Amino acid sequence: MSMKVLVIGAHGKTGERVVRELKKGSHEAVAMIRDPAQRELFDSLGVPTVLGDLEYPIDHAVQGCDAVIFAAGSGSKTGKDKTVLVDHLGAIRSMVAAAVHGAQRFIMLSSINSDPASTSRISHYHRAKGRADEFLRTMNGVMEQSLDWTIVCPGGLTEEAATRAVSTHAGSAGTGNTSRDNLAAALVACLDEPNTIGKEFVLLDGDTPLSNALKSV
Amino acid sequence: MSMKVLVIGAHGKTGERVVRELKKGSHEAVAMIRDPAQRELFDSLGVPTVLGDLEYPIDHAVQGCDAVIFAAGSGSKTGKDKTVLVDHLGAIRSMVAAAVHGAQRFIMLSSINSDPASTSRISHYHRAKGRADEFLRTMNGVMEQSLDWTIVCPGGLTEEAATRAVSTHAGSAGTGNTSRDNLAAALVACLDEPNTIGKEFVLLDGDTPLSNALKSV
Repeated sequence: MSMKVLVIGAHGKTGERVVRELKKGSHEAVAMIRDPAQRELFDSLGVPTVLGDLEYPIDHAVQGCDAVIFAAGSGSKTGKDKTVLVDHLGAIRSMVAAAVHGAQRFIMLSSINSDPASTSRISHYHRAKGRADEFLRTMNGVMEQSLDWTIVCPGGLTEEAATRAVSTHAGSAGTGNTSRDNLAAALVACLDEPNTIGKEFVLLDGDTPLSNALKSV
Repeated sequence: MSMKVLVIGAHGKTGERVVRELKKGSHEAVAMIRDPAQRELFDSLGVPTVLGDLEYPIDHAVQGCDAVIFAAGSGSKTGKDKTVLVDHLGAIRSMVAAAVHGAQRFIMLSSINSDPASTSRISHYHRAKGRADEFLRTMNGVMEQSLDWTIVCPGGLTEEAATRAVSTHAGSAGTGNTSRDNLAAALVACLDEPNTIGKEFVLLDGDTPLSNALKSV
């Protein structure tokens, strides 16, 4: 079944790869961008765009979509306030919008060592990601709507080319690296692998073919 | 020292009482309202207003203020999505804005039995409040800025007149009722009681004079 998939953070390094990966398959991508100047790239790819900023309501962007891939991040160059506003609050806002508007499938790009009570060197980031993930894991049965969620936690992101060979384990704790190409391939492959629904897992570069790995997370 | 105090949720049943209580003392109230039609009341009280909606950035409302009293709530008549968007995300957004703009003193109107992992009959509400409170308790040392916070957890809210006699205990767990008038008096009194900084406590109607109670929370 072809899904209309909103990619939040489409102009980021991983988000753009997610859009390109979606273009290769049967699903329909919609790129959410914050700055109109980012539109040119997606016009050239033939991918529709919608303007949205995670510090504001994004209902208009989610409406009519079947799935959301959340690939946004405030980045390491902004203040820690933006980490809270985007990576924590913006992520939960996206989950609520997806639930309310029936974009039932929600794929969350999280991070290795995300943890609501992190004391790591970048605890502000790991807490923001961990708190958003915790909301997603626990919202079903508490809110009126529910989501079919998957949380993917990559390691240190690299520019290596896709091998489509990975290693996975449950949870978010771990050490290692993940190629952005492999990550984008995994985020998109989750859409068609029902075994990933309701799972949170670490995704590292490894030896197992991606499609096999996702069958057993 | 007179402080300029932003009252978020000023048009609510408790918020209006907070504004009226502030008018009696030496601090300067600013009422944040969502709907321009709510302005008339505050004009008649001689209290300045600022338009702000907790689903959007509220930096403009916080700028220039010394303190924030958060008395907003999505109310029990809206969907659970609004509980998340306002009581959880809107509250944290307010904390971030206060920290970034130097409104150092932050008084949070929470709720008895607020708990990030609540399984109560209204768990969506108790989780939203609990998660916002947890953020406030733990943000200092994680973010670049810090806040002098107080979290006040009333019981079931009543329309009884102020007795200014209360009982308090640490944390958020408990059972009992709290007059909205007593609650408003306590929220405002916290501004001038440094002992309440860094404390979370339950506030119920009781026998101890309010000012004594706040000295020993």
